[in-house]
Amino acid sequence: MKKILLIPDSFKGTMSSSEICEIMKKAIHTYYPETEVISIPVADGGEGTVDSFLAAVGGKKVHLTVKGPYFEDIKSFYGILPDNTAVVEMAAAAGLPLVGENKHAEKTTTYGVGQLISHAVASGCRKIIIGLGGSATNDGGTGAAAALGVRFINSKGESFIPVGESLSEIASIDTSGLDPDLKGVEMITMCDIDNPLCGPRGAAAVFAPQKGADEAMVRILDQNLAHMAEIVKKDLGRDIINLKGAGAAGGMGGGMAAFFGSKLQMGIETVLDAVHFNELLDGADLVFSGEGKIDSQSLGGKVVIGVARRTKKKGVPLIAIVGDIGDDIEGVYDEGVSAIFSINRVAIPFSEAKLRSKSDLALTMDNLMRFISLYR
Amino acid sequence: MKKILLIPDSFKGTMSSSEICEIMKKAIHTYYPETEVISIPVADGGEGTVDSFLAAVGGKKVHLTVKGPYFEDIKSFYGILPDNTAVVEMAAAAGLPLVGENKHAEKTTTYGVGQLISHAVASGCRKIIIGLGGSATNDGGTGAAAALGVRFINSKGESFIPVGESLSEIASIDTSGLDPDLKGVEMITMCDIDNPLCGPRGAAAVFAPQKGADEAMVRILDQNLAHMAEIVKKDLGRDIINLKGAGAAGGMGGGMAAFFGSKLQMGIETVLDAVHFNELLDGADLVFSGEGKIDSQSLGGKVVIGVARRTKKKGVPLIAIVGDIGDDIEGVYDEGVSAIFSINRVAIPFSEAKLRSKSDLALTMDNLMRFISLYR
Repeated sequence: MKKILLIPDSFKGTMSSSEICEIMKKAIHTYYPETEVISIPVADGGEGTVDSFLAAVGGKKVHLTVKGPYFEDIKSFYGILPDNTAVVEMAAAAGLPLVGENKHAEKTTTYGVGQLISHAVASGCRKIIIGLGGSATNDGGTGAAAALGVRFINSKGESFIPVGESLSEIASIDTSGLDPDLKGVEMITMCDIDNPLCGPRGAAAVFAPQKGADEAMVRILDQNLAHMAEIVKKDLGRDIINLKGAGAAGGMGGGMAAFFGSKLQMGIETVLDAVHFNELLDGADLVFSGEGKIDSQSLGGKVVIGVARRTKKKGVPLIAIVGDIGDDIEGVYDEGVSAIFSINRVAIPFSEAKLRSKSDLALTMDNLMRFISLYR
Repeated sequence: MKKILLIPDSFKGTMSSSEICEIMKKAIHTYYPETEVISIPVADGGEGTVDSFLAAVGGKKVHLTVKGPYFEDIKSFYGILPDNTAVVEMAAAAGLPLVGENKHAEKTTTYGVGQLISHAVASGCRKIIIGLGGSATNDGGTGAAAALGVRFINSKGESFIPVGESLSEIASIDTSGLDPDLKGVEMITMCDIDNPLCGPRGAAAVFAPQKGADEAMVRILDQNLAHMAEIVKKDLGRDIINLKGAGAAGGMGGGMAAFFGSKLQMGIETVLDAVHFNELLDGADLVFSGEGKIDSQSLGGKVVIGVARRTKKKGVPLIAIVGDIGDDIEGVYDEGVSAIFSINRVAIPFSEAKLRSKSDLALTMDNLMRFISLYR
């Protein structure tokens, strides 16, 4: 065995992707100390996304001061990968942990996220990956856009930086001042959810309550996002009302598409592209992936299936190590998963099983490597 | 893959050894339709033992009428294997199902078991395997001995056939009339427990209550077995008081040793010998065994470890498929188990898991065969 790739999702509530990689690697090296093991912790766009990308492919972390959720100065960061792709995680400038208990979805801004992007393109990055997730904002990405030169103008003709509660004041949008460095830059927004911008499944209704909005505020924020979308359509010619994922991160998904023409893309696809997974597969003997539960719903594009579609094309075996194996999983094999193993080793409920998930994963990997070593 | 051997224990309370073999075989043939799969359902000595041996190696079932637990005529049977070994299961002539609710450990006899043995040796069998388990008796095997010519004599010099309550009347034992056909016949008694004949872990204390004995009767039966052991020592020169396993099946373990010089042997060892397992291993690519739970206590000689000790010597890989994997299992690998896989696929308690054990086993086997097929 020359090369093995590890690319597991986190097991929600029990183990991070990095922890899983570590345990898998250790088991492999017990039996194959010479094997090159490449760990690719899978980022989901939220907190830790930059570190995950850097752990997977290397690169550097750039530290700088930008505006926080309340326009205060904060220390933030983004990552630059070896191929000059920048990775920005929204949570680093507009994340919930930055506001503590002071949650006001209607007053918070993504301005700092725009500053991070601005710094990256000024540094020469020509591809930017934006991780959504864990945001404290509901500004539809207008703050980030403003930081990059987009002008939001009210009915009096004055330019302003909108927040959730003031999106309704936008009368027109002027992108003529957009940062010229952005021209030709590819923007990829990692987005694993398909919530629309507005309505009962929209950004405000589903996510604003955890950002401090009460019922009345949710209604206002929802209307305000709808208003913003109308102006976007009128002035920029882009429809984000019907865009799946536009409702992610307080409408940041929609804003990224509206103001920067960003593609919204599944996180796993973004990771696979960023780490040049297809090239890593060359010469690989085996790939291990995994997630907390695999079932027929996993076919909707979760991590294991995203990986499987790549390994299948290259003819590299893929073993899925999971928490639970659901019913009706036949389709998973069709997608390219070679075999699936659960880490459950005793018949106990999840409340107990989760406390021992690390040792159970280690045991499962140990037995698989013992098994492989019979034949390889 | 030319040849695979299946030799699992039952998963207590969920699947019989035969059922497990069937599920395993089906999974193997899905991927390797040409592979010779040899199923060896493991008998434990109790009800079904004869059928298990016959299923494993072939042979014939001999039907005949003998005495039942209350000396009534019943239809019974034993098996003759291709190598002329007879397999007698005690339950077929002295089993609990034969007495229904009419349980009286003090009045029941193993006489019919002796008749089965007698018929086997008269038919030319030179090796007899006796399966204990599921008995309704507590006669110390005196009934079986009487059927084969041993005379039990009371203080008045009269010969009689003792039962549990009349063991105390034995004044002497005369083996001069023992069936001459028995001479040179090898007797193997399958016995997986180490309970002594008497005392708090003895036949009466531990097993007689489920055979209808109340507390007072347990005391009497215990004393009576001790009395029998004294006479055995006096007249036959054999010590069964200190013999591990003598307390099995109402003292039948002790009686087999006392009256016929039978060896008491672990069930799995008996099965492995009877099916000529060492020879079956020649040319085998892989062996699957399994049991309901594997842990450090399994080292005490349960099925998987018994199999492992044989496969290790021959260098054939052994995969254990189990219900639960306990802690501290390192020693299991040292004994020769190549790898262990649990059939648990979701984190649920055993009360739920056992209802789905068959499909969970099928899924685990399916994934293992998918995995193997990557390399073989």
